[in-house]
Amino acid sequence: MELAHRIRLARGQEPADLLLQGGRLINVFTGDIYEADIAIQGSWIVGVGEGYTAREVIPLRGRFVAPGFIDAHVHIESSMVPPPEFARAVVPHGTTVVIIDPHEIANVLGLDGIRYMLNAAKYNPLSVFVMLPSCVPASPLGTAGATLYWYDLRPLLSNPWVLGLAEMMNYPGVINGDPVVLDKLRAFAHVVRDGHAPQLTGRDLVAYAAAGMSSDHECTTAAEALEKARLGMYVFVRESSVARNLADLLPAITPANSRRFCFCTDDRHPADLLDEGHIDALIRKAVRLGLDPVTAIRMATLNTAEHYRLHDRGAIAPGRLADLVVFSDLYDLRPELVFRHGVLVAENGRPLWEPPNRKVALRHTINIAWDQVRFRIPARGRRIHVIGVVRDQVITRHLIEEATIADGEAVADPGRDLLKIAVIERHRATGQVGLGFVKGMGLRRGALASSVAHDHHNIVVVGADDRSMETAVRAIAETGGGMAAAEGETVLARLPLPIAGLMSDQPIETVRREMDAVLAAARALGSELPNPLMTLSFLALEVIPELKLTDQGLVDVVRFERIPLFAGED
Amino acid sequence: MELAHRIRLARGQEPADLLLQGGRLINVFTGDIYEADIAIQGSWIVGVGEGYTAREVIPLRGRFVAPGFIDAHVHIESSMVPPPEFARAVVPHGTTVVIIDPHEIANVLGLDGIRYMLNAAKYNPLSVFVMLPSCVPASPLGTAGATLYWYDLRPLLSNPWVLGLAEMMNYPGVINGDPVVLDKLRAFAHVVRDGHAPQLTGRDLVAYAAAGMSSDHECTTAAEALEKARLGMYVFVRESSVARNLADLLPAITPANSRRFCFCTDDRHPADLLDEGHIDALIRKAVRLGLDPVTAIRMATLNTAEHYRLHDRGAIAPGRLADLVVFSDLYDLRPELVFRHGVLVAENGRPLWEPPNRKVALRHTINIAWDQVRFRIPARGRRIHVIGVVRDQVITRHLIEEATIADGEAVADPGRDLLKIAVIERHRATGQVGLGFVKGMGLRRGALASSVAHDHHNIVVVGADDRSMETAVRAIAETGGGMAAAEGETVLARLPLPIAGLMSDQPIETVRREMDAVLAAARALGSELPNPLMTLSFLALEVIPELKLTDQGLVDVVRFERIPLFAGED
Repeated sequence: MELAHRIRLARGQEPADLLLQGGRLINVFTGDIYEADIAIQGSWIVGVGEGYTAREVIPLRGRFVAPGFIDAHVHIESSMVPPPEFARAVVPHGTTVVIIDPHEIANVLGLDGIRYMLNAAKYNPLSVFVMLPSCVPASPLGTAGATLYWYDLRPLLSNPWVLGLAEMMNYPGVINGDPVVLDKLRAFAHVVRDGHAPQLTGRDLVAYAAAGMSSDHECTTAAEALEKARLGMYVFVRESSVARNLADLLPAITPANSRRFCFCTDDRHPADLLDEGHIDALIRKAVRLGLDPVTAIRMATLNTAEHYRLHDRGAIAPGRLADLVVFSDLYDLRPELVFRHGVLVAENGRPLWEPPNRKVALRHTINIAWDQVRFRIPARGRRIHVIGVVRDQVITRHLIEEATIADGEAVADPGRDLLKIAVIERHRATGQVGLGFVKGMGLRRGALASSVAHDHHNIVVVGADDRSMETAVRAIAETGGGMAAAEGETVLARLPLPIAGLMSDQPIETVRREMDAVLAAARALGSELPNPLMTLSFLALEVIPELKLTDQGLVDVVRFERIPLFAGED
Repeated sequence: MELAHRIRLARGQEPADLLLQGGRLINVFTGDIYEADIAIQGSWIVGVGEGYTAREVIPLRGRFVAPGFIDAHVHIESSMVPPPEFARAVVPHGTTVVIIDPHEIANVLGLDGIRYMLNAAKYNPLSVFVMLPSCVPASPLGTAGATLYWYDLRPLLSNPWVLGLAEMMNYPGVINGDPVVLDKLRAFAHVVRDGHAPQLTGRDLVAYAAAGMSSDHECTTAAEALEKARLGMYVFVRESSVARNLADLLPAITPANSRRFCFCTDDRHPADLLDEGHIDALIRKAVRLGLDPVTAIRMATLNTAEHYRLHDRGAIAPGRLADLVVFSDLYDLRPELVFRHGVLVAENGRPLWEPPNRKVALRHTINIAWDQVRFRIPARGRRIHVIGVVRDQVITRHLIEEATIADGEAVADPGRDLLKIAVIERHRATGQVGLGFVKGMGLRRGALASSVAHDHHNIVVVGADDRSMETAVRAIAETGGGMAAAEGETVLARLPLPIAGLMSDQPIETVRREMDAVLAAARALGSELPNPLMTLSFLALEVIPELKLTDQGLVDVVRFERIPLFAGED
């Protein structure tokens, strides 16, 4: 909008496009609440106060109006839908801005994946800002679809939707001065660099902060949050599908320090988005647990805008974008109207826009050298290293077990809950297959497979027999990626994820139904884990202790090196 | 410092240059105070916590340590000394960063004046950031030494010490859409634009905020401050030599909104700097009046750094500049040690550095066409418009009085406290002289003159007779600018200000003594005003109501037009 025009509108000398009349404004600058009209022209708030007129008037009748919510750190891929469908899931919950780290798709498609997320986000009523994935691949001990150095990433900074460098998970690399990591930090020294440093403390944490990381979303205790906040790091309070930290961190938040706290969801699965919501769910939970509602709303708006230097967002004020949430109950915040850039885009939880009919092209990402894929494990000893599943956690135990030998092969033995696990490289058809065993998945027969397998996202499969395993993997490959349960030659259920093998092209409700079907099949096959698919998707993540499997074989994460399957061979 | 080195130091793997040991750290992020050592390498804080070693250790023995103070808005010219001497006055008071608006010198010397301030500030232990003067000249109704358009100013943004556009005093121009003003705002839309909008309220204030101004330092009531804060403007609480607003604004500050408040001094004369101090004086006063000390320190540090987007200042944290203040009493904060960029630069109020022996060249600025200067006023009527001084204020009253006529001339009549006033153009020797009368200065004889005459800084002189007036003006011209008191052909006292006619080349203590001498002379001549020099310096400011005099003649500020001296001529 032309400046002179904006000024005339702000003075009330011309009618605006839209007037939100008689709402109770939540002022995140001052922390108080008072009745004020909001005049909007195009995407912008032009007037706040009284005496404005507009071509369209929406009376709010004393309902509250807050700035649109901001998710400080989220991987959209975890919702298993691409940005347009993700927007349909979260915007009705009051979220108007998300800061994403397209780390998963970047591990599959590199820069093409990052650009896909940026481009797919366009022309939807959700502002999607990107922090560039800092750790692709997670390590050299698995095969990802791409390797991103600083000189690959930095040109993307010229995109106005790219804000900085995302969670620097390689904190050992930072504090030990890994030259490749430090080059990355130097290349982004002038922009925001987000942190990721679970349980890092003392001088190692000081070093991590000194190196430039200005946030952290991995705090699990109030003491950890306070230590990080004191060093100048914004603390993102996280409630993901994998880790829920709000209740533990809430005691750290005081009136004096709350400006340094934000909210993020990190990873939210379809069911959690649909059943619980998004940032609104964090606000509700925080308030239910005793946090002042205005403080909670500030954590979801102004604080995050300040951290990311988004000077025209995060507050209701003249000259800021008209991203607004209207609701009736401060202590049980349920968004009733959501405005994004001045347009009513959701009402009572329902999106009001049609998804844009835009196809953003992306290449097929399941590339497997089938002729080299073998599941058989010739016996080379009697004792084997076995991955021990820990219920509800992404860490595993490193077990040593007797192998079950049949016909000269080490085989799955469901009676002992000893299942075979394979990780099949799927990016470049290298033919690499990592093979091993896992305890704790609980399948008594059949197999379960997924192309969502952090962070490399090769295909991970666990099964009671080789045939079921191959059926599950082929089912996934047929749909360009996904998740599947199989028994013998029968595919019992599947969730196709044709977008990079990570995301569906279907509505999120369909994704949730299909995922539920795969989970039901897994349960029918004997697994009693709360979410065997989530457990499965972390068994290949070689940077989380203790024992993991990549396409290159077993990884002892504690020693951070590859080890053979048979213990006797050490 | 090289990043890998910084990380090793932060981990405590190498001794740092300096360790401040056992201080009580004021953490402005979290608002709490706790014992922590601070490790410093070169200019930077590398470690905070325990377990650090260093080549030099300074034990703080439980004394408090806070970040260096930031003055959010100051005209150094008002101290009547240039930046190096200003630094000697304020750094011992704990100020390590000032955001200056070189508005006065820019009115005299234009871009040369701004560059002079930037360059003169170098190699002194005070970080001087510049906001570019937005209103040079103040109006077309007086003659300044320069006119600065957006295209003059914007190239200076490439200087890393230039942050944005300074106080947009022409708020009528903004809200009425003056194209020259709006062009200036557009040219600086991507950086911080400071406001200056005394008593602006309602939709006019909304329009001013909508146009991009994100601060204000002109609030005089708590209600005004709150209204501005609610619109997203940072409120700078000001204690200048001219206006003291702290006591009035303090009731507006709450734990919920204090993050949006900062401190500034705007204009401080030598005596106030020497007797009271600088930002430390504001902190002391605020705390004495009941503000929480940590909140006061945050207003002097982090809040201001956030407003100006100075991400490496305003807090004690790894990766920030080592600007630090050590003191013993939280409730009567007296800086004992001041570190700037890791160097101890002041102790117990005394500067520890020698002024750099650098001359920054500047041209002579007193250019008067003496052959055209006349003080005589031929009588053209019986009633005259007279400037009425209001004690302790910069506004004046517009009076109509009977002229005193002698020999066909309107003359000063000290018996009625009716003095003659002249404003002599001194930039380009145009020969323009504005003539008029003033009531309330109180001189019974002699004259008082100054080349500090906001904002054009022509020479303003008030006197009981023409000869004394000419003597005073010539005394000023002889020293390249300054202030002087004269009687007949005798110069009674003078303060030479050879730098642009605004600043001395002497120590601030000398300036203060010389100024006191001029004031004493003024008092001896009969003036009973608290500070007749200050009053004098605002009599030519044609943008402050009601009646002022410029070199172009009398200005009716309310109607914003020139008027003749004789009322009958209307």
